[in-house]
Amino acid sequence: MTLQGTSIIGALRGQGSESAGQSINPTTNETFEPSYTAATSEEVEQAVRLAAEAFNTYRDTSGAKKAEFLRAIAGNIEASIEDLVARMPLETGLPEMRVRGEAGRTCGQLRMFATLCEEGSWVDARIDRAQPDRQPLPKVDTRSMLRPLGPVAVFAASNFPLAFSTAGGDTASALASGCPVIVKAHSSHSGTAEIVGLAIQQAVADCGLPEGVFSLVYGGGRTVGQALVKHPVIKAVGFTGSYGGGRALMDLAAARPEPIPVYAEMSAINPVVILPEVAAEKGEALAEGLFGSLTLGGGQFCTNPGLVFIHADAASQITGKLTELVNGSSSAAMLNAGICQAYGSGLDGLKNHASVQTLAEGKCGDAQNQAVPTVFQTTATDFLAAGDLTEEVFGPATLIVTYTSDDELSALFASLGGQLTASVHGTGSELAQQGGLAKLMEDRAGRLVYNGFPTGVEVCASMVHGGPFPATSDGRSTSVGTMAIYRFTRAVCYQDCPDALLPDELKDSNPAGIQRSEV
Amino acid sequence: MTLQGTSIIGALRGQGSESAGQSINPTTNETFEPSYTAATSEEVEQAVRLAAEAFNTYRDTSGAKKAEFLRAIAGNIEASIEDLVARMPLETGLPEMRVRGEAGRTCGQLRMFATLCEEGSWVDARIDRAQPDRQPLPKVDTRSMLRPLGPVAVFAASNFPLAFSTAGGDTASALASGCPVIVKAHSSHSGTAEIVGLAIQQAVADCGLPEGVFSLVYGGGRTVGQALVKHPVIKAVGFTGSYGGGRALMDLAAARPEPIPVYAEMSAINPVVILPEVAAEKGEALAEGLFGSLTLGGGQFCTNPGLVFIHADAASQITGKLTELVNGSSSAAMLNAGICQAYGSGLDGLKNHASVQTLAEGKCGDAQNQAVPTVFQTTATDFLAAGDLTEEVFGPATLIVTYTSDDELSALFASLGGQLTASVHGTGSELAQQGGLAKLMEDRAGRLVYNGFPTGVEVCASMVHGGPFPATSDGRSTSVGTMAIYRFTRAVCYQDCPDALLPDELKDSNPAGIQRSEV
Repeated sequence: MTLQGTSIIGALRGQGSESAGQSINPTTNETFEPSYTAATSEEVEQAVRLAAEAFNTYRDTSGAKKAEFLRAIAGNIEASIEDLVARMPLETGLPEMRVRGEAGRTCGQLRMFATLCEEGSWVDARIDRAQPDRQPLPKVDTRSMLRPLGPVAVFAASNFPLAFSTAGGDTASALASGCPVIVKAHSSHSGTAEIVGLAIQQAVADCGLPEGVFSLVYGGGRTVGQALVKHPVIKAVGFTGSYGGGRALMDLAAARPEPIPVYAEMSAINPVVILPEVAAEKGEALAEGLFGSLTLGGGQFCTNPGLVFIHADAASQITGKLTELVNGSSSAAMLNAGICQAYGSGLDGLKNHASVQTLAEGKCGDAQNQAVPTVFQTTATDFLAAGDLTEEVFGPATLIVTYTSDDELSALFASLGGQLTASVHGTGSELAQQGGLAKLMEDRAGRLVYNGFPTGVEVCASMVHGGPFPATSDGRSTSVGTMAIYRFTRAVCYQDCPDALLPDELKDSNPAGIQRSEV
Repeated sequence: MTLQGTSIIGALRGQGSESAGQSINPTTNETFEPSYTAATSEEVEQAVRLAAEAFNTYRDTSGAKKAEFLRAIAGNIEASIEDLVARMPLETGLPEMRVRGEAGRTCGQLRMFATLCEEGSWVDARIDRAQPDRQPLPKVDTRSMLRPLGPVAVFAASNFPLAFSTAGGDTASALASGCPVIVKAHSSHSGTAEIVGLAIQQAVADCGLPEGVFSLVYGGGRTVGQALVKHPVIKAVGFTGSYGGGRALMDLAAARPEPIPVYAEMSAINPVVILPEVAAEKGEALAEGLFGSLTLGGGQFCTNPGLVFIHADAASQITGKLTELVNGSSSAAMLNAGICQAYGSGLDGLKNHASVQTLAEGKCGDAQNQAVPTVFQTTATDFLAAGDLTEEVFGPATLIVTYTSDDELSALFASLGGQLTASVHGTGSELAQQGGLAKLMEDRAGRLVYNGFPTGVEVCASMVHGGPFPATSDGRSTSVGTMAIYRFTRAVCYQDCPDALLPDELKDSNPAGIQRSEV
């Protein structure tokens, strides 16, 4: 596939004017073709105008049709898999196996939402029939269901070029809910975005949907993204990235004349607690598990375990083996130079911290932008006194904090902001005695992991990939799993509406055959 | 009952220091006893501290226990009904019948949430069981349910001293979800707040719940309310009032180090469309219905129809009778002097507007703070050209806008901000031809009313009393009906959690006997 390097505006391609840069191979720092051009303000306006037009019909598209569309996207991505395998590793330093795995996950997500749409009960249809004889006043007929919010802007993530990007979770759930999507590509993998964007554009055409259901815009700086978030037609924003980037979008959206919801996944250090009995019982296995979770994907997962709380008496059961594994490990390429520099700064901060000891370090390879697995250690007393050790260091680093009492463990949790996950390892009897710890974990996180490590996020109905601020901007929602569809909806109530004018989901005859709650 | 005039801080009473004023009889402008004192900053801090402590156990209180508590509140309010009848009309100018009716609605809401809690399925329990043999990777066991956010601050409304105040919808839904509540009383009905606050305080004690589950604070200016919204322990805010007040709280909450959700119901003019055939068929009945809706509760309902779009050819079918009814009507007391002054300013603005004609005016009575029903008229052309006729005038006023084409009707809708409701009157054949209008209505409102007027909000499972900004701060939620419980919750996922440590709702044996979705 020859890439053109321009935005996708509905059924057409943009021209652009200013450069949005070339992709860079992070392992060599070499740039390669094509050069990408940023969408002009006119092109952004056109994408938004088309999205508004498309919403007018796409909002009422049947669940079966939306399912066909989502499956067509998945099919087209699978048909482009060799193009992705040729391009994505060059842009991201990620191996071919990861491309295939992440593409599988991305297509799986799309098909999960297709099934959800097709079945249709997700709209939470509620019917309260009229009671004309009720005293003292008759009751009207009221019926409600979830309806799409309107056009959505999605910002692609650096660290998941497929599963959290152009056709990722936010795009899939917004399209499933009936919202058109405009994706802002991430400059770290522009070519991957183009390949996937074309797969979606083709699916729009094949399914006979209005072209504005999907656009993909490139932008070098912040202009294009800010224009989207400030545009009155845009009704919600999805974002995965840094705290700074996410908070800036939140503030921009909150300051609009009409504020809109921003679903930003931003930062997490995902604390893992290891209780003493389990450490004594299977310390080596836990060290291996922690090492695997810590270094998975080059440590560039949002669920990376950045903080480990271990009872001081049992710490050596873990740290001995972990040190051996990390010292024997090799570096891996990071996604881009910016992320690698930030990781380097984070490591320097910990290495030079008066309260922190460097426990183990992997070997640094010859290629560019290498992330060296590194483990640090401190005590709870020092951690709490320092107060500056809760920042995310994005990459394969973790800080082991030894504690000596349950009160210290509570104080450690209380010092943390919101997290995507909180994990605990313990024997059955240890966990049974830790009711207080479960509450601390729940206060801080969206997913509580027992005897496991936080990396690996199942795509299913009960998944919550979200959590209290600053893990995400809005801890009431998830970016993974079927519940993500609720991000882009609001309930609408129809009072005494003639049956013919009701959405199918609310008609007396229930032609969609969905589950409804009726009184 | 002798009122003390001080805040309720958990099981105790505050002392206060600064004055929060006396209640004023709006019909005479006379003040009466007692004087209310504002909560001190120490008292606010104590209420918040108690709420945080209470959350630690109240969050895990069973549905049956929460139901008992909500019913105890309702019972205590009913036991205080004569105190309310003696006090509330003096403070608010509302008649005794309204006190009894609104108390009934308030207790009905509390019992509706009691039933919801007791049944228990509202938590949306989802179970995806483990698949240890899945290839290429085993699947972990994940289960999710909705959990309470934490302590909630509720700002009482001026216009519903019972149903949207101390024990109103936000308080009931927050308590039902498992969140402690701190209510900021409205200075317009301090005594009513105290009577209801004591009913809740007594219910907390009778049910053996931690005292911090409920507090009620008074404050003369903005200090007390702002302190609540900025406090890190507070996790959500409910508010019903003016656009200015609501937006200020939204901005305050968005600027916190940890932003929190604000559910503010702010302003709406609730457009009503009257199509020509139905106007010709039953113009007089429609005029009577409009007059009744317009003047209900002195025009002080958030669903008051402030704007009526009528086809020019049929306008006289409505305006003749409406003019007669309004000219023959009498004024009613408004809730307080501030609201009456704002209504007067709004009327002056319309009376002096070059594009607006005053069609009819009721008679002004002798008492203080009277709201005179008033009807204005203009054309769509003038309305759209003026651009300043979409502001809410809170009171029994409405503006009739005559249009001459469907395009003009579309342009009228397009000129409006978000609304709580949008209504249309039409014959069956007229409505069938107005598919475009249904979309315009849905874009702008949370509840679409067919052949009815917007006042009268059913408290039921399918009710949506919400709508796009600026009708509310967050159009994704409702303040009325069972869906209001979702305001104060977030989903939490438990991964491989031992059965004994799971909440009852997620245990294998389903001891709560609730509906769950399982895979």
